[in-house]
Amino acid sequence: MQTDMMQPEFQTRTVKVGNINIGGPEFTVIAGPCSIESREHFQQTSTAVKKAGAHLVRAGIWKLRTSAEAFQGLGSDAFDLIKEVKKETGMPLVSEITDPRQIEEVYDFVDMFQIGSRNMHNYSLLKEVGKIKKPILLKRGFAALIDEWIKATEYIRMGGNDNIVLCERGIRTFETATRNTLDLNAVVYVKARTQLPVIVDPSHAIGLREFVPQLTYASAASGADGVIVEVHPQPDKAMSDGRQSLNFSDFEKMMLQLDKILNALGRPLQKI
Amino acid sequence: MQTDMMQPEFQTRTVKVGNINIGGPEFTVIAGPCSIESREHFQQTSTAVKKAGAHLVRAGIWKLRTSAEAFQGLGSDAFDLIKEVKKETGMPLVSEITDPRQIEEVYDFVDMFQIGSRNMHNYSLLKEVGKIKKPILLKRGFAALIDEWIKATEYIRMGGNDNIVLCERGIRTFETATRNTLDLNAVVYVKARTQLPVIVDPSHAIGLREFVPQLTYASAASGADGVIVEVHPQPDKAMSDGRQSLNFSDFEKMMLQLDKILNALGRPLQKI
Amino acid sequence: MQTDMMQPEFQTRTVKVGNINIGGPEFTVIAGPCSIESREHFQQTSTAVKKAGAHLVRAGIWKLRTSAEAFQGLGSDAFDLIKEVKKETGMPLVSEITDPRQIEEVYDFVDMFQIGSRNMHNYSLLKEVGKIKKPILLKRGFAALIDEWIKATEYIRMGGNDNIVLCERGIRTFETATRNTLDLNAVVYVKARTQLPVIVDPSHAIGLREFVPQLTYASAASGADGVIVEVHPQPDKAMSDGRQSLNFSDFEKMMLQLDKILNALGRPLQKI
Amino acid sequence: MQTDMMQPEFQTRTVKVGNINIGGPEFTVIAGPCSIESREHFQQTSTAVKKAGAHLVRAGIWKLRTSAEAFQGLGSDAFDLIKEVKKETGMPLVSEITDPRQIEEVYDFVDMFQIGSRNMHNYSLLKEVGKIKKPILLKRGFAALIDEWIKATEYIRMGGNDNIVLCERGIRTFETATRNTLDLNAVVYVKARTQLPVIVDPSHAIGLREFVPQLTYASAASGADGVIVEVHPQPDKAMSDGRQSLNFSDFEKMMLQLDKILNALGRPLQKI
Repeated sequence: MQTDMMQPEFQTRTVKVGNINIGGPEFTVIAGPCSIESREHFQQTSTAVKKAGAHLVRAGIWKLRTSAEAFQGLGSDAFDLIKEVKKETGMPLVSEITDPRQIEEVYDFVDMFQIGSRNMHNYSLLKEVGKIKKPILLKRGFAALIDEWIKATEYIRMGGNDNIVLCERGIRTFETATRNTLDLNAVVYVKARTQLPVIVDPSHAIGLREFVPQLTYASAASGADGVIVEVHPQPDKAMSDGRQSLNFSDFEKMMLQLDKILNALGRPLQKI
Repeated sequence: MQTDMMQPEFQTRTVKVGNINIGGPEFTVIAGPCSIESREHFQQTSTAVKKAGAHLVRAGIWKLRTSAEAFQGLGSDAFDLIKEVKKETGMPLVSEITDPRQIEEVYDFVDMFQIGSRNMHNYSLLKEVGKIKKPILLKRGFAALIDEWIKATEYIRMGGNDNIVLCERGIRTFETATRNTLDLNAVVYVKARTQLPVIVDPSHAIGLREFVPQLTYASAASGADGVIVEVHPQPDKAMSDGRQSLNFSDFEKMMLQLDKILNALGRPLQKI
Repeated sequence: MQTDMMQPEFQTRTVKVGNINIGGPEFTVIAGPCSIESREHFQQTSTAVKKAGAHLVRAGIWKLRTSAEAFQGLGSDAFDLIKEVKKETGMPLVSEITDPRQIEEVYDFVDMFQIGSRNMHNYSLLKEVGKIKKPILLKRGFAALIDEWIKATEYIRMGGNDNIVLCERGIRTFETATRNTLDLNAVVYVKARTQLPVIVDPSHAIGLREFVPQLTYASAASGADGVIVEVHPQPDKAMSDGRQSLNFSDFEKMMLQLDKILNALGRPLQKI
Repeated sequence: MQTDMMQPEFQTRTVKVGNINIGGPEFTVIAGPCSIESREHFQQTSTAVKKAGAHLVRAGIWKLRTSAEAFQGLGSDAFDLIKEVKKETGMPLVSEITDPRQIEEVYDFVDMFQIGSRNMHNYSLLKEVGKIKKPILLKRGFAALIDEWIKATEYIRMGGNDNIVLCERGIRTFETATRNTLDLNAVVYVKARTQLPVIVDPSHAIGLREFVPQLTYASAASGADGVIVEVHPQPDKAMSDGRQSLNFSDFEKMMLQLDKILNALGRPLQKI
């Protein structure tokens, strides 16, 4: 028997984040800085990505860094500025938590809780976010089998939270020319085997900004439900992940080309 | 400095195979069976993929199989039938050689010599195909670094043969749900670092036919110069690689959708 | 310049766990069940491994399991029985914690806190165990670079806790015949680059009990400071990791052969 | 059922190379330069490793190098000097061939034909060496599954040649601190599943000479049947693989310590 996967059927569940649907017949774009560096930085970036057509803003409060000496994010110093900027832009915020004790602190202004790649196997944390009502963005562990990734969602569901979106962000392989290896096989495989929306993080997947647009188009063409992209006003001065962040102008150009491709695919950018 | 990769510049060299250009402003599709099983099998498949829009036919004469007991291809029994079928269809043939002594035997009717993934590091063989005038399709070793892949082309160039097309066909990683892991990072990276055309083999990259169309679209959207796809009249009865081969009808449907996407990308299917 | 590594210099720091030294001129053996299944089970196993010459007992209270449906350990139901058995055997206990909130609960009867492979990148947890006075056993993440493993110790040291022992437990590679791939390269490399004691977990590294003795001998011969081995009264009935657990009799035989090899290496089993 | 692997049974087949047995109750050491650089270089190194107790000399005639510009070995310029030096030392020679056409050229003075890691999947070459009477040293492909490695021996056996010794030489993983990752799991696994002798190449497995002795001891303790080690009069001036070659003095010291460990294991160095 030959399965026909050519006409996507959109049987994927829709996960609502604020007024935005992830997994429905339209495509979602999440964009923003790796970490919030200042009020002005977050305000500028949010405004720019919104203007270019992004639906949600991403921005890190606490950063997991390999070295304890590297910039670890603003932490609670960012709380007030986030609330102010969100009031201006009206964009829902996706942000990562790294410790169960952070949930309560940011509950009021984070609209989607991200579990990062390093914590996909941190089942204590997964159980905690399973108890809340907000949607969860579960990144794939950088060396997690597809099967382990799907099974990790059980720990979230146990507490009653079904609002899960998966995010493929590249896996660790023998190749070192690129930061990770984008695994689009996993995207198409997981979409066929589960009803969960799956988005792609091309920025982490390759780690080199000049290739982010091409991988974004490829992700869209593969059938992913959206992308999450790092954008920074001055990537070369970013406090983290600058090498993989687009500037405003390149993000805008990418959105225009993405729009054309999505229309050809019959799956347009979500209207806000 | 922010490199703008969004407007492809087509500085890629063009490699001519028969009347077909690989690497130019148009997209190339190579399709056909894993191995030639009989005259009728090859004739039917060639005709079907041509009708659906493929530019070149692929077909194995000698197969490298992990087990010495598995079907190893028809070998020299296929020579006459290939010549006959080629006369009918007029399609140039891409076929793999696995031993320097095969070059002379098939020189007259193979239009592009493929070096398979297992032989990318077989520098004796690379040197031999460097001495001939026909174009070479150099598949990436399934665990070859991008850098090793590029360096392998030096062995071919040494003899004076510059007509090289690279083919990404999936790499070996820890993931086992799919046969290999398609590495589109490598495609965009190699295209930016070399002037060689790069095509993708989605069939080997995932090993599951139902996902081949989505990976084909993704490859096109990433900027690859073409694809090489396995097609079989009855995939479930194929003597090799049946699980990853499309039947005629699914290949046709895929070509129609691919055509739309390529038009949106401004890089149409090559006209014959 | 040719470095002579042939005469080990024992410049490694010594980490004291109860009355046992890890990293000194003698070799340490930690043994016990994957998880505590009952009072009798833990008592029997502790007694057996002590009699065979083990210095510390290992035993899981909370288990991280890929599936949320699998046995997750006895949790707090094990606290009282652990205290009782420890009183009988006098063996210090190594046990894993998976959540910062567990530290206080088990502080009184766990002598060395293990951070498991899945949590090596859980920097919130590392920071917490950095604030306590007990020694830490930091397992290598199953896909962690040696460099990331060493850097993870910074998070523990930040809080003032320098009593860190590293544990190589196998990494995830393309090979699937064995559960993981034991990386003795990492053991010798890390020992030369840091002053931290490094032990090996051959049970997880291969996942097949019949090979645990050979890997134990190899680890000792490579210069590791000890091993941590899974032992169970009836491995085939174990609630977790039975396939890789030795029974009492095989553990005893292994200890006799290990003793001979260690004597030849000039690094005997620690006397208690 | 608990398999007792603690008492090795030496059911391994013995492969005879000249007057040396590989796979019997005694341990075999193969040593020598990566490539032959000159008559004097080969003569000195052969004499030094023989004096220190090595049983066979290894030395490359044709080298497979990632870059076509790197030193490729002396090729046929080495034939005469090899014959002369062998007459003096009487040591059997292990050397790699990379092309079927080389077999005849070196048949008279190469005692064991090595198939290198890059050619493990070159089945044309395997079939050719299957037709000769000399023993074969089949290195594991650097990304070959254990199962593929074992199956590759079928291609050699097809022609009637059963004299096969396997060599684990490190696999390619995500780790980059070391050249490859030594996989001793594979050694113990393959020895239990086949009757083939298995030796280890610690030099390629880690790529850093200072760690070669420790990995040699570990290989012996794991139950390997021997090792193949790179030795050079002045490693820092070697034309290839200098970083992983031992000098004469370090090789001698290693042999003394290895001897002690092998005696404790009950498997002494082979007497000549």
